[in-house]
Amino acid sequence: MKILRANMERLEITWEPVPPEYERFGGRALIAKILLTEVPPQCDPLGPHNKLILAPGLLGGTNLSSSARLSVGGKSPLTGGVKEANSGGDAGSHLARLGVKAVVVEGQPADGKWYVLHISREGAQLLPADDWRGLGTYATVAKARERWGEHCTVLSIGPAGEMRMAAAGVACTGYEDQTCRMAARGGLGAVMGSKGLKAVVIDPSGGEAPPLADPELFRAAARRFATELAENPRTGRQGSMHLYGTSAIVEAVNEMGALPTRNFSAGRFEAAENLSGPRLRETTLARGGKAGTRCMANCVIACCNVFADPAGNPVVATLQYETIGMVGSNLGIGTLDEVARLNRICNDLGLDSIETGATLGIAAEAGLARFGDAESFLALLDEIARGTVLGRVLGQGAVVTGRVLGVSRVPAAKGQAMPAYDPRALKGNGVTYATSPMGADHTAGNAFGVRDKVNPLAATGQREASLKLQLDVTMLDSTGLCLFARPPVFADPQLMVDLINGRFGWGWTVDDLQEFKKTVLRMELEFNRRAGLTSADDRIPEYMRREPLPPHNTVFDVPDEDLDTIFADL
Amino acid sequence: MKILRANMERLEITWEPVPPEYERFGGRALIAKILLTEVPPQCDPLGPHNKLILAPGLLGGTNLSSSARLSVGGKSPLTGGVKEANSGGDAGSHLARLGVKAVVVEGQPADGKWYVLHISREGAQLLPADDWRGLGTYATVAKARERWGEHCTVLSIGPAGEMRMAAAGVACTGYEDQTCRMAARGGLGAVMGSKGLKAVVIDPSGGEAPPLADPELFRAAARRFATELAENPRTGRQGSMHLYGTSAIVEAVNEMGALPTRNFSAGRFEAAENLSGPRLRETTLARGGKAGTRCMANCVIACCNVFADPAGNPVVATLQYETIGMVGSNLGIGTLDEVARLNRICNDLGLDSIETGATLGIAAEAGLARFGDAESFLALLDEIARGTVLGRVLGQGAVVTGRVLGVSRVPAAKGQAMPAYDPRALKGNGVTYATSPMGADHTAGNAFGVRDKVNPLAATGQREASLKLQLDVTMLDSTGLCLFARPPVFADPQLMVDLINGRFGWGWTVDDLQEFKKTVLRMELEFNRRAGLTSADDRIPEYMRREPLPPHNTVFDVPDEDLDTIFADL
Repeated sequence: MKILRANMERLEITWEPVPPEYERFGGRALIAKILLTEVPPQCDPLGPHNKLILAPGLLGGTNLSSSARLSVGGKSPLTGGVKEANSGGDAGSHLARLGVKAVVVEGQPADGKWYVLHISREGAQLLPADDWRGLGTYATVAKARERWGEHCTVLSIGPAGEMRMAAAGVACTGYEDQTCRMAARGGLGAVMGSKGLKAVVIDPSGGEAPPLADPELFRAAARRFATELAENPRTGRQGSMHLYGTSAIVEAVNEMGALPTRNFSAGRFEAAENLSGPRLRETTLARGGKAGTRCMANCVIACCNVFADPAGNPVVATLQYETIGMVGSNLGIGTLDEVARLNRICNDLGLDSIETGATLGIAAEAGLARFGDAESFLALLDEIARGTVLGRVLGQGAVVTGRVLGVSRVPAAKGQAMPAYDPRALKGNGVTYATSPMGADHTAGNAFGVRDKVNPLAATGQREASLKLQLDVTMLDSTGLCLFARPPVFADPQLMVDLINGRFGWGWTVDDLQEFKKTVLRMELEFNRRAGLTSADDRIPEYMRREPLPPHNTVFDVPDEDLDTIFADL
Repeated sequence: MKILRANMERLEITWEPVPPEYERFGGRALIAKILLTEVPPQCDPLGPHNKLILAPGLLGGTNLSSSARLSVGGKSPLTGGVKEANSGGDAGSHLARLGVKAVVVEGQPADGKWYVLHISREGAQLLPADDWRGLGTYATVAKARERWGEHCTVLSIGPAGEMRMAAAGVACTGYEDQTCRMAARGGLGAVMGSKGLKAVVIDPSGGEAPPLADPELFRAAARRFATELAENPRTGRQGSMHLYGTSAIVEAVNEMGALPTRNFSAGRFEAAENLSGPRLRETTLARGGKAGTRCMANCVIACCNVFADPAGNPVVATLQYETIGMVGSNLGIGTLDEVARLNRICNDLGLDSIETGATLGIAAEAGLARFGDAESFLALLDEIARGTVLGRVLGQGAVVTGRVLGVSRVPAAKGQAMPAYDPRALKGNGVTYATSPMGADHTAGNAFGVRDKVNPLAATGQREASLKLQLDVTMLDSTGLCLFARPPVFADPQLMVDLINGRFGWGWTVDDLQEFKKTVLRMELEFNRRAGLTSADDRIPEYMRREPLPPHNTVFDVPDEDLDTIFADL
């Protein structure tokens, strides 16, 4: 495999052999390694020294189910630290099958011009794209596919990324009608925008599966993995993950009192049932939308949907839990149609719906919109689209918006908005938000999954639960695997070891796997340390320790000491 | 002396004996000590745990010339670290003569109401002031003096502080017609606003000079101090400091190529002569304004002015160098009348003219105003006054404005805008901006004064020069002395030792004095460390290392290592 470098200052493409020190990393781990090796940790995230990195996981390109996710990374303009956000779709597989270990986008054009990076079996080129400027992500995808074919995977930014807004993500096409998935978090769309890069188009034609060091071992493990997913009561055909996707948990989070409601002022939303997984599936299917489809060609779970409006026209694919929580209940909005409209516009502008939902909640608290009134929030998204001063404030995300509007209730950690679990009612997530090198991020270690083992309202046990989760997900994020595909590999670490050894022949043991996970976190923490982050950044906002959250009326009370010692034995 | 505490949550005044560990500190040193002892370093600067501290210097209240400055402090909403800003005027003397070692304002009113703190010989009270809301600082002073008498000193915030804008300072009245001096920097006006405190009124009636431990020693030292100031060629009656005040240096800084021009894009301004000290004096006197007056009753230098418009009406008192640089040349504005108008409005809104000037320069670079067009900047100040979204962005200062407007050229360090010396042409100031615990602040160690000894364009020697200056000014800021009054005590440290021993009888040696200075910086650095600041915050913006500054076409090239080791031997 090769490293593909695109130098945006010199408009130069180079293909490099993979340096030995990068060999054993992929996805999130490779991003951490490249950042630590190549990017000055104190650089301006939107300046020439930052790099935008696209990296398939270690298992990307194989026929392993659910392994095609693409990691996108760089120094985050939101957190000031390391950032990896990954997206569903086939991008990870397509790149890996073209022999691309990582795409590293460097420098920035001096002339402020825009480019598309086209990658195919024939090579890669940077093509002028000034006339693409201002396009939404949907139009960008359409334009790219019109030119290069429907089979191409397209990564793009919308106007938000062009305007270098810190709430901007990278939109990624997925399988079939999954036209907009997002590597949403941390402002990586702004980093892409700062490189003058409007889109990356990957033509997978002629790509080949990477070689297997031990085909028999790999295939046996991959089969077992797929079978266990198919037979698992949650990921199998009768399981809630297949039937409802991430939205399966709306009612459960609401029941626990952790569903962000009206700018995190309550944990239970009176209209949660209208936003639930079953309601989503039922509505979708009744209207001729789709449920139980896939975001990548090869996935036995198939958790996706295509949400349709009452006339049966597709609105978004896939409508997901975090979006439902953040632009639904968090804005007091109780219909899926309104949530889907807001989601569609976030997608088209290239905005992270989590950061944006939190930001709009703050704007409502400041009186610029009304909770429950979708039109008032659509009007704010229009400000972002038009790049007005207010729009540019909102586009910078929750922390800047709170500061400008004088709102002190800003649900964020390390500068990044919290996803849809209030840390006062799911305290393990509070520990993850505070301590993860990624900032407030549920994918970095979501304690919702261990709510039956660790009391979500207790202050104790959260540190240990969060640490274990934070370690375990590094392996998913570094192999291209979906979080939904975790049951088989969490249940038996040897399965992951077999997959790695089958693919690469590294002779790993379970201990090596554990060491790998630690290495990932260590690299990320080291980058953040060098970037100037300290334990002062490992905190939940002050008001959440002071203001109790209904209905349980609990505050976040995990001691600072637990936060400060979570990685002590790493 | 006593510590006067005003608890804004319980609306309670308490008078406490000075704790022994606070005894030997005053002004800036006392603020550092109180912050380190009482304020959680990671607290929300605008939340209930921060404190607003007003502290006379150690020599405040005595008859020593130029010693009446008041230190204002708290955790800064701009830098996130320790903050002391001091102001001319008699406040320090008045408080000290009422026996007040420090005023500590704590908590915040739950009801969002506004108060005035009135301090007199009879005691202190918190009085309702909801009807003062929205008043400019000039009207606030007029209202307070109408009620309590012209002899009262008034500290107040304007609309900017009420709106908790991070560019807001605390306005302080001075002697006679010096109605608006500012403890400008670091957003302390926002901290005062967050306490619901519109004004502090100090009635000095019946105040008494503090006791002298060794009256003879003190009086002799004070006489010598005054004589040396009077006879010094710069501070004496024929000296530029007396004749022109701080504006004396406009032409010299322009000549060195360090005068911020059009958002720090050049270091020389074609119209600098129109903004010079001689031009200021001549214009002022010709119009019936004043020059060579005092901000405090007892000062032998008398560097102040009352700038008048062509009709002879006072506009501002005192028009100063930093304002001339930041809202003059930095905005491409080349007439004193326009500078004075902008200054007047900044004062009235309660805005730091340095932070505001830098912010307006960024806004012009973003196309929201035109360099050289004062009306376009007045329109932006009006946005701040009206609290529009744009106004609230600008009111948050340079860093937030740059981020929102997508401008990467933001002249700031530790989140605080640079004053009127470009660090690429006065590199010692770059070292001070980067490393001072106060953030970018010329009063923390201004290398302009040593330009004949240390080549301002050289990368070497700046660390040592900045360190010495940073240490030396701690003593001025902790005794209530004006920076202009430094020659006698810088020339002979024993003079300061005699003053301290004469006042307190501590038996200090010159070594003790040196140790005191180090202690001040150590406390401040320790607060910042606990607040989460690191060497990554001790940096000059990346673009200033990349983009050369005309006319010398130099970049800031003092090595990071020099910045990181400056306090190594502290």
